[in-house]
Amino acid sequence: MRRLFLQVFLGLVTFSAFAQQDLFNENPIVSPKINPDHSVTFQVKAPAASQVSVSGSLDGEKAFAPITYEMVKNEEGVWSFTTPVLPSELYRYHFIIDGARSTDPGNAYAIRDVGNLSSIFIIEGGKADHYKVQQVAHGTVAFRWYDSPGNGKMRRLGVYTPPGYETSGENYPVLYLLHGIGGDEEAWTGSGRAAEIFDNLLAEGKIKPMIVVMTNGNVSQEAAPGKGSDGFVKPTFMLPHTMDGKFEETFVDVMTFVEGNYRTQATKEGRAIAGLSMGGFHTANISMYYPNTFDYIGLFSSALGVRPGGETPNSAVYQNQDEKLKLQRDNGYKLYWMGMGVDDMPMIFNGNKDFRKKMDDFGMKYEYLETEGGHTWNNWRDYLVVFSQKLFK
Amino acid sequence: MRRLFLQVFLGLVTFSAFAQQDLFNENPIVSPKINPDHSVTFQVKAPAASQVSVSGSLDGEKAFAPITYEMVKNEEGVWSFTTPVLPSELYRYHFIIDGARSTDPGNAYAIRDVGNLSSIFIIEGGKADHYKVQQVAHGTVAFRWYDSPGNGKMRRLGVYTPPGYETSGENYPVLYLLHGIGGDEEAWTGSGRAAEIFDNLLAEGKIKPMIVVMTNGNVSQEAAPGKGSDGFVKPTFMLPHTMDGKFEETFVDVMTFVEGNYRTQATKEGRAIAGLSMGGFHTANISMYYPNTFDYIGLFSSALGVRPGGETPNSAVYQNQDEKLKLQRDNGYKLYWMGMGVDDMPMIFNGNKDFRKKMDDFGMKYEYLETEGGHTWNNWRDYLVVFSQKLFK
Repeated sequence: MRRLFLQVFLGLVTFSAFAQQDLFNENPIVSPKINPDHSVTFQVKAPAASQVSVSGSLDGEKAFAPITYEMVKNEEGVWSFTTPVLPSELYRYHFIIDGARSTDPGNAYAIRDVGNLSSIFIIEGGKADHYKVQQVAHGTVAFRWYDSPGNGKMRRLGVYTPPGYETSGENYPVLYLLHGIGGDEEAWTGSGRAAEIFDNLLAEGKIKPMIVVMTNGNVSQEAAPGKGSDGFVKPTFMLPHTMDGKFEETFVDVMTFVEGNYRTQATKEGRAIAGLSMGGFHTANISMYYPNTFDYIGLFSSALGVRPGGETPNSAVYQNQDEKLKLQRDNGYKLYWMGMGVDDMPMIFNGNKDFRKKMDDFGMKYEYLETEGGHTWNNWRDYLVVFSQKLFK
Repeated sequence: MRRLFLQVFLGLVTFSAFAQQDLFNENPIVSPKINPDHSVTFQVKAPAASQVSVSGSLDGEKAFAPITYEMVKNEEGVWSFTTPVLPSELYRYHFIIDGARSTDPGNAYAIRDVGNLSSIFIIEGGKADHYKVQQVAHGTVAFRWYDSPGNGKMRRLGVYTPPGYETSGENYPVLYLLHGIGGDEEAWTGSGRAAEIFDNLLAEGKIKPMIVVMTNGNVSQEAAPGKGSDGFVKPTFMLPHTMDGKFEETFVDVMTFVEGNYRTQATKEGRAIAGLSMGGFHTANISMYYPNTFDYIGLFSSALGVRPGGETPNSAVYQNQDEKLKLQRDNGYKLYWMGMGVDDMPMIFNGNKDFRKKMDDFGMKYEYLETEGGHTWNNWRDYLVVFSQKLFK
């Protein structure tokens, strides 16, 4: 067998002159190297470079602005830097090589956020164990296209179905899970690690099996950048029609598709909706605009204070919101949940404070979780873990 | 509205100090820039760099070894290079900045091949229009986990279901589509653009609607690197048990899952199998080992000559292959199709020649397409377009 493999190997080596495949460009540098004490060593070979640094969410759970560390070159031309000990989390970073941003060439794993690719790694042994693929039963992630007559086009969404969905014959409750500005239908399965979180919480018996629908809240798009017929466009977060009511107005198209194509519990008791930042703003609006539709509402660092109050778009979604909110109160709901980091931007933090005040004034119940940190995926993953355990019980 | 957006924008700008999201790191450099004549300009800002080059499949349809071009710096520190006019194709490339490999920081789109990320772009107006998302009905791509008792673990595969599958109530034929060495269950939807190819050929009325199952032929893996419980391992193509018969022996687990979980035409007439390189080797073996199971067999640049004849692993898959092949002949099949590039490596090219000779000697019919180029995704995408139009008709 050893000789067989050697021969196969030698045969394949000659591929390298023929193949587009990157078979033989295996980068011998190990980066990131997660050390036993959970410090992390980054390395990149750039012998001719004069300055190399590593930048990213490398300050642990706080993870506000990226931290940038200078790297040091050894005699082989390999630049390196070792972080302090890092707590369990999903981290992302990039290198800056003589002024140019680069993914880590030693790391095959990257996530796109708006137009940038960042390399990623996980420190296990804590909360990030929920973000990791474990040896448990796995649900299915599918990306599907649905007809949105309200937007005059087909649009793409992500659907997580729990393990056993395909053969159980049962109906499942649905969580609609919305992204923030700059995101799309791939945000929650990418940076959000939603599929891993649901698989793991389900295996631990902490959540009910549910379908999770991840929409694209940018109605000017068919799909995430690169996945629509506009091709490999340069992504931008400054898209039109993200906060003008159109997404909320046409959310009925999403529900019609989901309830027509999946075995759902198509009742108020079987529907939850949650979102982060702009998606929290969408969530609040949708749960008011369809006032007797959702029993579970989750706002994660919701961008409630961002829209200036004086100038509202013409959408019916934004008209008479106080009356809509009172109607939502009168119709009843099981859970109105809000998560907020103390270090979020003041506009957001205060917008949520004002909204809670209004709910208090209206005599509406809610749960409020205030955490460390700010407007970060670290918090949003945490909030999903907490919120999802409260659903459909 | 304009003022509203400005206020929202200014509000959000303050996010940048708080957010991990890369909202405000929009790279102003446009790269790649596809010029009207279909030359392509690459740009990267690296003011402190002393040497920057771009390397990739930039020689058009031939695309053998990567071509590397030196880039030139302007006074703003932006390095650039413009290619010759390029034919319609999917291209990939990377930068080399002072010795370090980098994705293009101006380009959000990358594909992983083994352990390397490459930036990608499409030149439209020809064959690559099949590789692009068009405004047509879209099938669904789902990644699912199936039980493989033969391997003692759950494993992951990709499934493309055609538009309308979910609601039609009909049964569909199945194409099993296998990757090459260094690939995994994500290879055909990544570099292979299989979902786009099937959507587009179907919209043109050129193929029958079919389910496409994309397996992982590396039985030591549960899943593509990063998608299994081994975590974000450093990918390597030198995996154990890729060509020792285990994948073929346990292929029954795949078929059991697919036919138990999808509305399939679970007959010989409703089954096709095809693969590239190592996947072509697997395909030839599987179609012999399950001798009355597949009516359509496709070998794309099949690695038939790679396994040395003298030393075979112990698997029953490799025993008495002449008898197995004759049995396959006697049982009959509708199509045995082979595609091969004239510039493939001699071991592969001659291995296929020997195999065709054997089929001739045994009186077995086949179709053989010899093309320009070699062992490349350019050819494999072409072969899929040709082969898929011959299925289930």
